[in-house]
Amino acid sequence: MSVISFLGPKGTFTHEAANMIGDNLIPYCTIPAVLESVVNEESLYGVVPIENSIEGPVGITLDSLAHKFDLKIFDEIIIPINQNLIVNHGTRMEDIEDVYSHSQAIAQCQEFIVKNKIQPHYAVSTANAAKNIIGNKTKAAIGNSKAAELYGLEIIKPNIQDSDNNETRFVVVSKDDHEPTGCDKTSIIFSIYEDKPGGLYNVLGIFQKNDINLTKIESRPSKKGLGKYLFFVDFNGHRNDDIIRNIINEIQEKTYFLKVLGSYPEFR
Amino acid sequence: MSVISFLGPKGTFTHEAANMIGDNLIPYCTIPAVLESVVNEESLYGVVPIENSIEGPVGITLDSLAHKFDLKIFDEIIIPINQNLIVNHGTRMEDIEDVYSHSQAIAQCQEFIVKNKIQPHYAVSTANAAKNIIGNKTKAAIGNSKAAELYGLEIIKPNIQDSDNNETRFVVVSKDDHEPTGCDKTSIIFSIYEDKPGGLYNVLGIFQKNDINLTKIESRPSKKGLGKYLFFVDFNGHRNDDIIRNIINEIQEKTYFLKVLGSYPEFR
Repeated sequence: MSVISFLGPKGTFTHEAANMIGDNLIPYCTIPAVLESVVNEESLYGVVPIENSIEGPVGITLDSLAHKFDLKIFDEIIIPINQNLIVNHGTRMEDIEDVYSHSQAIAQCQEFIVKNKIQPHYAVSTANAAKNIIGNKTKAAIGNSKAAELYGLEIIKPNIQDSDNNETRFVVVSKDDHEPTGCDKTSIIFSIYEDKPGGLYNVLGIFQKNDINLTKIESRPSKKGLGKYLFFVDFNGHRNDDIIRNIINEIQEKTYFLKVLGSYPEFR
Repeated sequence: MSVISFLGPKGTFTHEAANMIGDNLIPYCTIPAVLESVVNEESLYGVVPIENSIEGPVGITLDSLAHKFDLKIFDEIIIPINQNLIVNHGTRMEDIEDVYSHSQAIAQCQEFIVKNKIQPHYAVSTANAAKNIIGNKTKAAIGNSKAAELYGLEIIKPNIQDSDNNETRFVVVSKDDHEPTGCDKTSIIFSIYEDKPGGLYNVLGIFQKNDINLTKIESRPSKKGLGKYLFFVDFNGHRNDDIIRNIINEIQEKTYFLKVLGSYPEFR
């Protein structure tokens, strides 16, 4: 059975996502460590978060795939994020003074935290937050039901996130991408010549004239100064399709840097 | 003298930026609280970070300006970010086990932290991190020289950031934007119709045909689901210029939502 590495610890949303593709799971502490484990062949697949519908891109995943690792996206997984207020058994709402969670989870529950006048604190992960409150009745954590279960805690308020459109997209990375399935997406990264105006406009025009739909466009700083960007674009089609192959060739001619992150089945 | 609110506490990079436009400064704990203070007329100007050249946009500033506050950008300030390793007097490099800082500062010094095998921890701000290590010789903080000075600490290693292209852009928000100076920028936010392909391409085409240079394009999740975005675009010119007025009118016709954040002098 294939070994799958994921961004741990156990009890995080990434754990939940990784579980959807297999059981032979190994947690790693950081996103680069997950990717490194795939490069070193300690695992065949690595599962890391790439974007959240409320908080946006996971910068370190995008930056790692762009600059540091030569890995491909083999698959994608999208799961709804329901944040829960987790406490020790017997804690009442009025006992809670402090709440711990990952910075993204804190951001996702901002209105709830302010309304209930609880002091927020950052933890390395939602699961780590849950572990840290064990035995303390004035502290709560924000996380998924798996975290509560794992540490013998209970959910005092479910679904405390500010928005109900909260979902996270994870990518499964591997040394190779996926063969065509007939319903695929392709992810690319490019940067444009800074001294030529209209660079992004020209690249988008290539998709436009071929009637190919973009499912994502995300800008990231290129780390070369303010106003200089890498663009992460996802679109429908497989890189082995003739039309997509031609589009990629044309983009290559119009960009300073292009990296094809891979083609993989669209999540359903 | 005009009252200026800024994202505190004292000793942060935002404090440094706010100091460049005045001396009558009041710190607030969160970015929304700074903006609120301008709305409530506790201050005339509010200074908050909006983007960093390495880590990207400050999500809560963009989201607050887009959705929650009807404020204008009156000015911009750009400062180079030099991160320093701060310790108690007498601490040696080999004594340090833990390092505390804001998540963006930790991210900016990732290579240094890994290389020196120090355990990173998140703090609410760089200044707060400095305050928290006082008296503890196994702990260090990452922050600016103002933070070290403020809390009687010393810099054991200067400039520990991974990249030298590290600068942060701050915006000065107020109830009104700036009158034209002849060398201005304008910031807008828009979202495109999801059901019509090529929306972003069409908007960029308006700038292209008028030969107006974009200085920034940043995507943010619209919070309505994956693949749905708000675009933050900055470009040269003042909204009172005829050409810019026409561009804005044309964008209005092609977008689902448009908000002009204001025109202000370009930072030099």
